Amino acid sequence: MDLSSVETKSLKLAANTIRMLSAEAVEKANSGHPGMPMGMAEIGVVLWLSHLRYNSSEPNWINRDRFVLSNGHGSMFLYSLLHMSGYDLSMDDIKNFRQWEGRTPGHPESHITPGVEATTGPLGQGVANAVGMAIGQKLMAEQYNTSKHSIIDHRVFCIAGDGCMMEGISGEASSLAGHLGLGNLNLIYDDNHISIAGSTDLAFSEDVGKRYEAYGWHVLSVDGHDIAAVDQAIAEAAAEESKPSLICARTTIGKGSPKKADTAGVHGSPLGDDELAATREALGWDYDPFTIPQEVSKLFAERGEELSTQYADWQKDFEGWKEANTELAAQLKSQLGLLVPSDIREKLIAALPDSGKPAATRKLSGEVIQVASKEVPALVGGSADLEPATYTLIKDETDFEKGSYSGRNLRFGVREHAMGGVMNGLAYYGGYIPYGSTFLCFSDYMRPSIRLAALSELPGLFIFTHDSIYLGEDGPTHQAIEHVSALRMIPNLWVFRPADGLETALSYEAALRRHDGPCAFALTRQGVPSIDRGSSFDSGSILQGAYIVRESKGAPQLVLVASGSELSLALECADKLAGEMSVRVVSMPCWELFSMQDASYQQSLFPEGVKTVSVEAGVTFGWSSMLPESSGPHLAIGIDKFGASAPGEVVGEKYGFTPEAVNERIRAHM
Amino acid sequence: MDLSSVETKSLKLAANTIRMLSAEAVEKANSGHPGMPMGMAEIGVVLWLSHLRYNSSEPNWINRDRFVLSNGHGSMFLYSLLHMSGYDLSMDDIKNFRQWEGRTPGHPESHITPGVEATTGPLGQGVANAVGMAIGQKLMAEQYNTSKHSIIDHRVFCIAGDGCMMEGISGEASSLAGHLGLGNLNLIYDDNHISIAGSTDLAFSEDVGKRYEAYGWHVLSVDGHDIAAVDQAIAEAAAEESKPSLICARTTIGKGSPKKADTAGVHGSPLGDDELAATREALGWDYDPFTIPQEVSKLFAERGEELSTQYADWQKDFEGWKEANTELAAQLKSQLGLLVPSDIREKLIAALPDSGKPAATRKLSGEVIQVASKEVPALVGGSADLEPATYTLIKDETDFEKGSYSGRNLRFGVREHAMGGVMNGLAYYGGYIPYGSTFLCFSDYMRPSIRLAALSELPGLFIFTHDSIYLGEDGPTHQAIEHVSALRMIPNLWVFRPADGLETALSYEAALRRHDGPCAFALTRQGVPSIDRGSSFDSGSILQGAYIVRESKGAPQLVLVASGSELSLALECADKLAGEMSVRVVSMPCWELFSMQDASYQQSLFPEGVKTVSVEAGVTFGWSSMLPESSGPHLAIGIDKFGASAPGEVVGEKYGFTPEAVNERIRAHM
Repeated sequence: MDLSSVETKSLKLAANTIRMLSAEAVEKANSGHPGMPMGMAEIGVVLWLSHLRYNSSEPNWINRDRFVLSNGHGSMFLYSLLHMSGYDLSMDDIKNFRQWEGRTPGHPESHITPGVEATTGPLGQGVANAVGMAIGQKLMAEQYNTSKHSIIDHRVFCIAGDGCMMEGISGEASSLAGHLGLGNLNLIYDDNHISIAGSTDLAFSEDVGKRYEAYGWHVLSVDGHDIAAVDQAIAEAAAEESKPSLICARTTIGKGSPKKADTAGVHGSPLGDDELAATREALGWDYDPFTIPQEVSKLFAERGEELSTQYADWQKDFEGWKEANTELAAQLKSQLGLLVPSDIREKLIAALPDSGKPAATRKLSGEVIQVASKEVPALVGGSADLEPATYTLIKDETDFEKGSYSGRNLRFGVREHAMGGVMNGLAYYGGYIPYGSTFLCFSDYMRPSIRLAALSELPGLFIFTHDSIYLGEDGPTHQAIEHVSALRMIPNLWVFRPADGLETALSYEAALRRHDGPCAFALTRQGVPSIDRGSSFDSGSILQGAYIVRESKGAPQLVLVASGSELSLALECADKLAGEMSVRVVSMPCWELFSMQDASYQQSLFPEGVKTVSVEAGVTFGWSSMLPESSGPHLAIGIDKFGASAPGEVVGEKYGFTPEAVNERIRAHM
Repeated sequence: MDLSSVETKSLKLAANTIRMLSAEAVEKANSGHPGMPMGMAEIGVVLWLSHLRYNSSEPNWINRDRFVLSNGHGSMFLYSLLHMSGYDLSMDDIKNFRQWEGRTPGHPESHITPGVEATTGPLGQGVANAVGMAIGQKLMAEQYNTSKHSIIDHRVFCIAGDGCMMEGISGEASSLAGHLGLGNLNLIYDDNHISIAGSTDLAFSEDVGKRYEAYGWHVLSVDGHDIAAVDQAIAEAAAEESKPSLICARTTIGKGSPKKADTAGVHGSPLGDDELAATREALGWDYDPFTIPQEVSKLFAERGEELSTQYADWQKDFEGWKEANTELAAQLKSQLGLLVPSDIREKLIAALPDSGKPAATRKLSGEVIQVASKEVPALVGGSADLEPATYTLIKDETDFEKGSYSGRNLRFGVREHAMGGVMNGLAYYGGYIPYGSTFLCFSDYMRPSIRLAALSELPGLFIFTHDSIYLGEDGPTHQAIEHVSALRMIPNLWVFRPADGLETALSYEAALRRHDGPCAFALTRQGVPSIDRGSSFDSGSILQGAYIVRESKGAPQLVLVASGSELSLALECADKLAGEMSVRVVSMPCWELFSMQDASYQQSLFPEGVKTVSVEAGVTFGWSSMLPESSGPHLAIGIDKFGASAPGEVVGEKYGFTPEAVNERIRAHM
């Protein structure tokens, strides 16, 4: 919409509608953040009426512009605009702000509200998500556009506040975006000088614009309340296609509130009855609460019609593209559906070396990835500067780099947190199963993003190698101890710690097929033997999370359960105990899958009253909770202290991970 | 030492000594990172011979310059220089690089090696540590220097690599350092264009110097192999006292190695026999392995003498200061010893309101902090922009701000990770018990720093509020679910989840008295009742980690154990079960302290065969592992899914945290 042809009065009224709707919803909930929506109201109007391309009746339209509200506490900004733009978000939903089972939670949640592109609130994450979406757009455009048809040519918008700009993750992601020259990305910085503690003068006086120039961005400044200037700035940002653009928008938080504007008081608290009344008066707002003035509805309806026409044009073009490119069209459909071939298991298993020689599961994972990437076009990813060690580079692919956006290998740099946020952005985008890799110990650096992937039910493979003290000489700063368990605690995250190639391949199968949540892998640095499971073994049983890898002779007197590199140790222990007791060995590569099995299966592995021992080179925490209550007393053998710098096998020995030391503890337990 | 008076040949030889010692140690260990020490050798020589003020026979001298190697993988750089400077680190120690129980672990560990100021390796952390040390210096100088005596006037140096500069934490910390105008901080950026994956061109093309200018730093560039230029740059950095300085030193990684210099191959792998021989030849190095040429030893000895004189001068000045300022001297001694008054418990308890009204533990914590800060001058800290919600501001103190460095309130901004790293820097510095606060959910943002505090045995209080679904409307992005348990898993971290004011006060006592590891607090947003423990209750029993808060009538048939806000719920449940069964209620504010108690105490709380039920508004993971094996079957009532946006009490009710719902589950369990 050409805003210069619209009366300023109407646009101001639209902005005030965002203000009042937000303030009223927060007031009704008696909880929330009115300041941001009130401060960004003009920018919202300009963005939605003049720039953002969407189809509110088709919120998953693949060529829609993406919008991410990184400062997610300003959720009413987004809900107001989604409602006004005709998304399936009613005024009753708005009135139900922050209430049980509502569709307008305190912070935007992508899996709950149509039109919400990303779950935000933990600050800075949205910026990284937007970078991921911009990468997704570039890659998809490169893959599917033809000289005749540009079916993917949308942009990615993100709004971020002072808090987002202070968080390290946004810096990491923005540096990466600058490096990649993501000209399709426009970030609007809500520069209001106020954070929860008060003025940003307390802690934040850097020159944000200059910092972004240093990252290689195109930087603009604008008065965020000047509608024409904002419109012009966004147009200029769009015109710069070789760099991402940052628009530093100077705004007044809580604008419209006579007493609270420009104060921290309006950041995270309702205005209160009196101030809400004063704000109505100051804005000349003469409507009932929760009203969209007709004049404003009309504007958004006109915009909707304009966009419908554009959408119809795109549809026509898309149909032409499909007709001319049937194979490509089939591939796109398959990619968007995150389809995985039905025989993926066989193919992944075939990727394993048949030498039977010991091999590190990180290397086996590397072999599996080569095949997975061929079979699953949605798979895209890389490493935080550790691909030579994590073996995650796709050998037949090029790098995704500035000016060459067709490669599926992403080079994240030493930026684990941004890697997590970018992965989530790719997953939100659709058509991607992202993966990222680093050492397991550094999963801590990206934990907030892993949690958001789990909360938002995103696909994704977090590939963590060097998963224990067996990392060796790098020492305790790099040796994972508590990390596998700490990941297992995140709801809706599946954690795999495979023992060998077969378990690695099956873990990948599960992860590739999973669309409603992420998976994490804990892989060894060191070589592990290929487990002999006998010829009648059904590899599918691995996907029950735990299974009998070796049956005892006669009824078991002990069940020995292990994961990852300790499975071969458990088998050795069982061998050595052969004359003394009847030992069953269970492998448990995935707790989450095991806990989904019915009680009878769980009890079939761990029979009533039979003693159990777990062996895992990590904290013992939680193992006893994993076994059926009816099973016998449990001994957890693990590591409840930090590691040490020495060759891995030495540390293992010193920490009691030898058949002799383990069996001594088992005997004491029996 | 005036380097212009030293023959260049000698200085070059000293640099080559660092190169060869590092390459040889890595070769012998067959593991390590020779590239960094070889690339930074000249800078090491200049820093140690001409700038760094130390006393190698008194490594804890309070006015020593601090040096942090943020790119800790280059540990041989530091070990070489410590050895050459006469620290208690022998050539045998060097030869024992990366070996079991050695004093030269793969990455520097401050609690193992004299002269190592900070445990580094996880990238970027060292930069934040250095910022913390610089804050520590400024604060201590302000507190103790007088117009006649400047007893604290040292500087803080840090070396960081490309990886450190890519990590978000360094950006956060550097932005804060710029804001605070820490002119005592000099950061040297080892700009070698190589990271593990290859050239930094792959992922990192920003203008680092310009970014630091944007942060408000003084930025210099230098050829890192030009000794005179480096010397000059460091002098210029010292001359700028109103801003921190960044020296961008262009270096060649692995310099000296004919084939591997300037390649990723020299980053993290030994040179190999052939290339080591070629390097010897290229450098004209004609000594046996592990030799310090006499000429070089002499240089360092001269520097040592020079520094001894300076140290003696300082000592004299210090004695004068002590004489003139006896009270201040006593306070300094007490602060450096992290002394806590013997009656701190009574004082902290006295800080609690005696209204008996329900109160949030975050607010009670806030009251306790007011007293603790008065009684313990070592206590210093703040919040990541959430002090109005975490109640951690010391009311009678000013802010630590640019130009006004006497305040003990630190304003970290929305930078949780830097907060953690800065806290650790203060703890490394000595004389400080740092604290930092945010919402519990955002402990994830700073987890790598918390882990390092635990590994390095640092004091520190990580104060996390809004500790469960009872946070309410902000929703699942902000509601801690797995966080308390995930923190409990970190070795050597004590996690307190107090139930009321008394437990809060005692938790603070334990944390303030603890010098060999950090403590974390999980505090409520919502009000919780003050627990009636009867008049004969000995509050010290709280420090056993768990204790009987209400005894059953007759022998217990059930032990109900809870932490934090769920203790009052457990008591209500017990009340309602009174006619049905005999219930003992145990409070367990700290698992780590409980697990340190002897078995007889543990079993006295949880008698043999008696069923147990735990109630905690977090993941159930691990509770069963915490109880003695001899106790009866356990039911863990908790939350193993994400939270929801609604008023806290509504979420609590829907999630089954009512006496009725809990008791229904208890009855089923019995």
